[in-house]
Amino acid sequence: MGILVRGGTVVNADISRRADVYIEDGSVKAVGAGLEAPGGCEIIDAGGALVMPGGIDPHTHMELPFMGTVASEDFFSGTTAGAVGGTTTIIDFAIPDPQENLIAAYKRCRGWAEKAATDYSFHVAITWWDETVHADMATLVQEHGVNSFKHFMAYKNAIMADDEILVNSFTRARELGALCTVHAENGELVFHLQREIFAKGITGPEGHPLSRPTEVEGEAANRAIRIAQVLNVPLYVVHNSCREAVEAIARARGEGQRVFGEVLAGHLLVDSSVYEHPDFDVAAAHVMSPPFRPKEHQEHLWHALQAGHLQTTATDHCCFCAPQKAAGRNDFTRIPNGTGGVEDRMHVLWHHGVNAGRLTPNEFVAVTSANAAKIFNIYPRKGVIAPGADADLVVWDTKKSRTISAKTHHQNVDYNIFEGMEVQGINTITIANGRVVYRDGDVRTVKGAGRNIERPAYATYYGAMDRQAALHAPKAVHRGEAAE
Amino acid sequence: MGILVRGGTVVNADISRRADVYIEDGSVKAVGAGLEAPGGCEIIDAGGALVMPGGIDPHTHMELPFMGTVASEDFFSGTTAGAVGGTTTIIDFAIPDPQENLIAAYKRCRGWAEKAATDYSFHVAITWWDETVHADMATLVQEHGVNSFKHFMAYKNAIMADDEILVNSFTRARELGALCTVHAENGELVFHLQREIFAKGITGPEGHPLSRPTEVEGEAANRAIRIAQVLNVPLYVVHNSCREAVEAIARARGEGQRVFGEVLAGHLLVDSSVYEHPDFDVAAAHVMSPPFRPKEHQEHLWHALQAGHLQTTATDHCCFCAPQKAAGRNDFTRIPNGTGGVEDRMHVLWHHGVNAGRLTPNEFVAVTSANAAKIFNIYPRKGVIAPGADADLVVWDTKKSRTISAKTHHQNVDYNIFEGMEVQGINTITIANGRVVYRDGDVRTVKGAGRNIERPAYATYYGAMDRQAALHAPKAVHRGEAAE
Amino acid sequence: MGILVRGGTVVNADISRRADVYIEDGSVKAVGAGLEAPGGCEIIDAGGALVMPGGIDPHTHMELPFMGTVASEDFFSGTTAGAVGGTTTIIDFAIPDPQENLIAAYKRCRGWAEKAATDYSFHVAITWWDETVHADMATLVQEHGVNSFKHFMAYKNAIMADDEILVNSFTRARELGALCTVHAENGELVFHLQREIFAKGITGPEGHPLSRPTEVEGEAANRAIRIAQVLNVPLYVVHNSCREAVEAIARARGEGQRVFGEVLAGHLLVDSSVYEHPDFDVAAAHVMSPPFRPKEHQEHLWHALQAGHLQTTATDHCCFCAPQKAAGRNDFTRIPNGTGGVEDRMHVLWHHGVNAGRLTPNEFVAVTSANAAKIFNIYPRKGVIAPGADADLVVWDTKKSRTISAKTHHQNVDYNIFEGMEVQGINTITIANGRVVYRDGDVRTVKGAGRNIERPAYATYYGAMDRQAALHAPKAVHRGEAAE
Amino acid sequence: MGILVRGGTVVNADISRRADVYIEDGSVKAVGAGLEAPGGCEIIDAGGALVMPGGIDPHTHMELPFMGTVASEDFFSGTTAGAVGGTTTIIDFAIPDPQENLIAAYKRCRGWAEKAATDYSFHVAITWWDETVHADMATLVQEHGVNSFKHFMAYKNAIMADDEILVNSFTRARELGALCTVHAENGELVFHLQREIFAKGITGPEGHPLSRPTEVEGEAANRAIRIAQVLNVPLYVVHNSCREAVEAIARARGEGQRVFGEVLAGHLLVDSSVYEHPDFDVAAAHVMSPPFRPKEHQEHLWHALQAGHLQTTATDHCCFCAPQKAAGRNDFTRIPNGTGGVEDRMHVLWHHGVNAGRLTPNEFVAVTSANAAKIFNIYPRKGVIAPGADADLVVWDTKKSRTISAKTHHQNVDYNIFEGMEVQGINTITIANGRVVYRDGDVRTVKGAGRNIERPAYATYYGAMDRQAALHAPKAVHRGEAAE
Repeated sequence: MGILVRGGTVVNADISRRADVYIEDGSVKAVGAGLEAPGGCEIIDAGGALVMPGGIDPHTHMELPFMGTVASEDFFSGTTAGAVGGTTTIIDFAIPDPQENLIAAYKRCRGWAEKAATDYSFHVAITWWDETVHADMATLVQEHGVNSFKHFMAYKNAIMADDEILVNSFTRARELGALCTVHAENGELVFHLQREIFAKGITGPEGHPLSRPTEVEGEAANRAIRIAQVLNVPLYVVHNSCREAVEAIARARGEGQRVFGEVLAGHLLVDSSVYEHPDFDVAAAHVMSPPFRPKEHQEHLWHALQAGHLQTTATDHCCFCAPQKAAGRNDFTRIPNGTGGVEDRMHVLWHHGVNAGRLTPNEFVAVTSANAAKIFNIYPRKGVIAPGADADLVVWDTKKSRTISAKTHHQNVDYNIFEGMEVQGINTITIANGRVVYRDGDVRTVKGAGRNIERPAYATYYGAMDRQAALHAPKAVHRGEAAE
Repeated sequence: MGILVRGGTVVNADISRRADVYIEDGSVKAVGAGLEAPGGCEIIDAGGALVMPGGIDPHTHMELPFMGTVASEDFFSGTTAGAVGGTTTIIDFAIPDPQENLIAAYKRCRGWAEKAATDYSFHVAITWWDETVHADMATLVQEHGVNSFKHFMAYKNAIMADDEILVNSFTRARELGALCTVHAENGELVFHLQREIFAKGITGPEGHPLSRPTEVEGEAANRAIRIAQVLNVPLYVVHNSCREAVEAIARARGEGQRVFGEVLAGHLLVDSSVYEHPDFDVAAAHVMSPPFRPKEHQEHLWHALQAGHLQTTATDHCCFCAPQKAAGRNDFTRIPNGTGGVEDRMHVLWHHGVNAGRLTPNEFVAVTSANAAKIFNIYPRKGVIAPGADADLVVWDTKKSRTISAKTHHQNVDYNIFEGMEVQGINTITIANGRVVYRDGDVRTVKGAGRNIERPAYATYYGAMDRQAALHAPKAVHRGEAAE
Repeated sequence: MGILVRGGTVVNADISRRADVYIEDGSVKAVGAGLEAPGGCEIIDAGGALVMPGGIDPHTHMELPFMGTVASEDFFSGTTAGAVGGTTTIIDFAIPDPQENLIAAYKRCRGWAEKAATDYSFHVAITWWDETVHADMATLVQEHGVNSFKHFMAYKNAIMADDEILVNSFTRARELGALCTVHAENGELVFHLQREIFAKGITGPEGHPLSRPTEVEGEAANRAIRIAQVLNVPLYVVHNSCREAVEAIARARGEGQRVFGEVLAGHLLVDSSVYEHPDFDVAAAHVMSPPFRPKEHQEHLWHALQAGHLQTTATDHCCFCAPQKAAGRNDFTRIPNGTGGVEDRMHVLWHHGVNAGRLTPNEFVAVTSANAAKIFNIYPRKGVIAPGADADLVVWDTKKSRTISAKTHHQNVDYNIFEGMEVQGINTITIANGRVVYRDGDVRTVKGAGRNIERPAYATYYGAMDRQAALHAPKAVHRGEAAE
Repeated sequence: MGILVRGGTVVNADISRRADVYIEDGSVKAVGAGLEAPGGCEIIDAGGALVMPGGIDPHTHMELPFMGTVASEDFFSGTTAGAVGGTTTIIDFAIPDPQENLIAAYKRCRGWAEKAATDYSFHVAITWWDETVHADMATLVQEHGVNSFKHFMAYKNAIMADDEILVNSFTRARELGALCTVHAENGELVFHLQREIFAKGITGPEGHPLSRPTEVEGEAANRAIRIAQVLNVPLYVVHNSCREAVEAIARARGEGQRVFGEVLAGHLLVDSSVYEHPDFDVAAAHVMSPPFRPKEHQEHLWHALQAGHLQTTATDHCCFCAPQKAAGRNDFTRIPNGTGGVEDRMHVLWHHGVNAGRLTPNEFVAVTSANAAKIFNIYPRKGVIAPGADADLVVWDTKKSRTISAKTHHQNVDYNIFEGMEVQGINTITIANGRVVYRDGDVRTVKGAGRNIERPAYATYYGAMDRQAALHAPKAVHRGEAAE
């Protein structure tokens, strides 16, 4: 039995228009003006609101075991919070420990995710290297629909990928048609600075940003990008937080390189003054990596998003409650890194992006869903409202306002980095897989309703690179003496 | 009676997919796999070829009176040549003389265009300023569907717009929701250099590029962009030919400004060595402004197109035959400026763009039609194959090759700047307004079949700027003494 | 009778060393360790202090008639204030009105300057153009020792030089071996914005910066630089105040162009919040052009100074007292533009430059005297302590502090933009032309002791350009048909 | 017994002037017009020629054991060749093997250098890390006058310094007031590419540049610079060869960082087409790292030198004859890396720098001696002609020409990368340590006449950084609960 969303303005990444949307069997069946309602179908009156593709958050960490604890948000609570906020797909991470079998780690995460309320998928991290990793990457791509691999350039003595791993993994990903992604921070510098800062007697959360200055991120972003350039492989840089990183991306893109970049809602709007907060709990609640930055970086991030140097927005949703954060009360390096946001991303982006005149509504759709769908090769199944697409959409009332707060949010964490922020432009209805999962405050998500989304390799979105390589293949010089 | 294009891969700017296209009454009615053919409809077997939106050339000058002569290509011959090459819409220019009434000039051009074989529209140039110009801009926008105004920063003592005109016109366009465009060359420097070069005894076509070095263009591009920034109005820079100009655009975009840029097929592929040709006719045939540039600039242009700093490709199609060019045999400043290209743009872009690995097929569609349609606000009527769009499309065989030549082209000019270039990826069928106007060498265009396309103001594509202005409105300081 | 400055550290732009300095007949006669004191010579014990070249302020406006009034500081009071602060040479401006004879204007200023206490020289402004201007430029260079010409790109309907004047004057200066300088603000935009801002009801000093945003300066700087590039002439951009301007300079220098830039002490340290001051007199006291900028621009200016993109520091010393400023009480466009600073430049530069670790003491000398001397071709007569140089020097006690205030300054103006700033590193003795003119609070300047300094053309400091031009001279193509 | 060089124009980095130079006891005693000749002194008539400081080549490798062989040029032959070409000081390298004692390696090199004909000094490489290295760095600085440490970011499995070594060594150097230098190439990528290229069947010298593309250098330069920035230590990047590297330096300098850069004469003038030479010996003779680059990079290097982004010129003089190069006949990775140039640097720089209008004569002195002397803290003992300086100088006849050739050069190597280049502006007399060592073709160098030059730490030239660090020291936040 279908649903007809009537009387709204459908906003896709390319254009907006007055149109109704008819949904059946989990898919969009028709989009057009004046659609007729088939008998028995549910009719939702959009009342002039916007109808947009459900958000895709390409960077979350539900129930992640990390720094001696486990993220408080599980796949059900996390996808539910996402659905309330208009996000209907997440891409999470399977992060094997060094020496751990990739397939086993991946399957463990798949098991955790079975409780998800909306669709999900997994990036897999490459944290070590040997021939089994080389082989397992192929298995993941060819048998499990994994088309992206993550590399942490930070976290020395844990999951850090050094240049040797990067070179091996990037080369392998190229063979497999998969996309490489990096967390860009120079782990050697972070390690050095953490000890130096701590030795100076700075043990509180204010030591966290001091140990990870922006240059540390800019250096690593540039390094990964240049390695990708030399190896002729596209690259996706996660959670760019500062001028230095986005400049590295802009430079490379301006030279024709296929580099993509993501920005977190938090980095766009929260600045590093939070680490000076006199209350440890508040300061610690903001400890994540890369840290929040001095305020002047925010305009650089917005500009990069407007210019297309950055294509996606995410949250790095990774929740730890105050008792968990307290593990680092006497040593900032032991505060579990992570903050929430999956519920709020769409709202803060709309308010500070569209209402502020920085983004058009179409650009909003591009950076909250369509671009991620294209880059991770699930478009037009996701990221657009068009016949054949999954019926993941939101009804967005641009006139209504509300105030974000941990007291009212659905995220399973005791803090909200956007606490007290009033936003105008509200998600009133979320439809995921053709079902209404949220409507006007009423949460209707169902545990296990979400599906794993397989993502095929060789995305056409960045398909040009191999041809280019072919054309510019180097050749040997034929010398007479070679015959001698 | 409809047409069903069956068995192709529909390539739009966002995605490619196997799909049939059904056309009726000049519009696309359906796009999907396995469409059924209504009785009596014509069936075209795409045979696995690509089906793409017909090209939009946003910069042509058919039958332009210029430098004492008239461009040899008229609206019928020019749109026919375009159709053969896969271009189904042109945006031409109405250029009033200083002191000439804008509406009269516009109507004169509309009259000339009535013979066009495919759809067309007009930018209108602002070459002078008084209150009637101010008023006529509104009339053009509100009554004639003109949403873009052109400003020539070169051609001193003729149609040059100085800073005062730019400031007045940009301000007025902002009020009207219209888009400003500029030909960016510092006319004062060109004027000075022309005299200086000529005085040195350099009278031949090699003097042309010497009198218009790249800095002349880069300066003007930057100036127009900064004026637009201060006045908070979006800007479109036509025919960027050099590193300096695209860097000015990239800088501004990187600061969040709404600036768009166009590149000509010729500038991407022809370099300034042509002006050294010993045969005057050959050298003169390449005289256009901005001139072709030293070869190293081409990679900058390609990179800017790949990075999205430039969004559109055009030709500045403006044909003069050798006897016309001969007017400047003894004085390069009198050679009529202009070259052809409307027929070849799509082919050279495909070959050197897609085949060379620089662009994906989707990006090809973006830069040959979709982006122009969005910027000039005729999307999704033009620039996409989707239900409701005008039935302007091409069937593109990526396996076939041909060689470009003035001997075989359909342009009404005796020279081809791409002479002898072999291109792979060929337009085999052009459909315009629902009619097959070209098929496998058979030209079927009809004089007068083209329509003027009205383009509404206040394009949503760059709609964010006004809101931004509103938010950042300056305020007066309240001082006690003000009351005194 | 000589002076021996004993026991100091002589700091030049290239190196520092313990050395005594012996002075006689207005010149430095010897620099070295353990110099013997000739009989009867005065001995000054530097007591371990630094001995540095007297400052050169290349941008002052003493007793300037401007905006309906006359600057309150005359050549005697102004050079005296400079001497107290360690500045022993100023380069002021002769600014002919449009249509006014250049030589007459120059001579009038020379007359005013006869009362100066220390050495001075004059830039001459080109505010209009005809053949007499062309001829008078030669006279000034060849007969009067003027080697620099100033161009105001702002002040429409007054002294603004449009592109035509710039092109003519730059070309002429190249022939004469003189240096062109520009005040870079787009006068057309300023004119437009002034009216627009005023029409919005913003009539107070806060309208001043709104009418001259940074883009207005960046555009003009870039334009002048590119015109200079095309005409192959070195350029000096005065009072760069913002990121946009210094980026234009850095870009050009990075492309091998000979461009020099100046920054004012005020722009390095005062920000635009002053215009929001509730007291009109305070806000108006800061009205100058370019205006003080948002704080983030200051770090760009410092960095540019450190990187060598900017070479000189100046003040644009141009004083108007509150009753004069009051002319614009109801219309910010009528507030006389100008602030003081000639007395404080060296001190604020030392404190915020050297003490803050931004500049070495040698770099301090470079940017306060040596570079200006080289650029304006009076080095090594000025700008260095070496045998043969003019005996202009300061004894600088790096341990002492004082607080800047209008109450104690020697400038003839009722406001000090650095009011209340405590600086460490104090000028204790100033020697000008071999005479002690200031010592420990005791002012000993003598009216008329200063001399006009003739500055020869064809400075070797930027002498490379002409050769480069010669090598790259364009050539005509020889075509067979040319003989026909 | 002294020497009076009479009738020349003394050219220093700051200024040129007609002056005589009187030398005695190895030092300059007087510089001035019309010096009187003491009895018995030798008089050299400069005949209007230029008299300039002897060149300093801060990057040579005399008799270096490398890649299984030893560089053919020893300290006597090498310094002699330098003297012929006008270079009177070299800074060579002591390169300990990993695990080798630094002091021992340093002393071994000191022993080899005793045969040098002119002055020399040593950088010491840090190729590994433990506590003895940490301690030995102090010994070298405090007891041996070593103030610079070199780090090779390339040469994996040999002398490569990874990020951990860089961080440790940079931190240690900061404590000691010594300068860090880097050879910037990403060794991991080079290692990977070498194997990949070889596996493709490219075994000849053309594989060398393919395995070390410019991005490999740009990445490493940026990485080292950012590490230095985070650790607040000045940095000197040796042999920058490409746009990417100089852009990294320019960016950092433009942000106020103390970064210095060197360029080799070879990279300014030789391009990568040499590796395509059909004769293996010719191609192999050019194998050095970084390799010669595509021609377009040269203009970037020149511009960077003109803009001051690069301060020094060197040669990386490291000679291997054809039989040595032949070790890599079947495997380009085994061709000993290195080319000559110490004899030719000054001449090619003058011809292509000064004659071409790129550099003034003063800038020539800056980039061939004065800047190196300042950076490596031997100024004004070296790098200037002034009383007290070492008597190292050249008499330079700007009118004479000659042709560079291996047949006539004095370098102990069978190839010259500038073979056949005609240069105008010739060194006619070299004086080193007060002795004429070369005059008009007559070589008079003496084995062992050169001295080791100790270079003190804490150079004032970049002394500002520590102060800056002090001002910006981070602080802990005082939280109430910390007391709990």
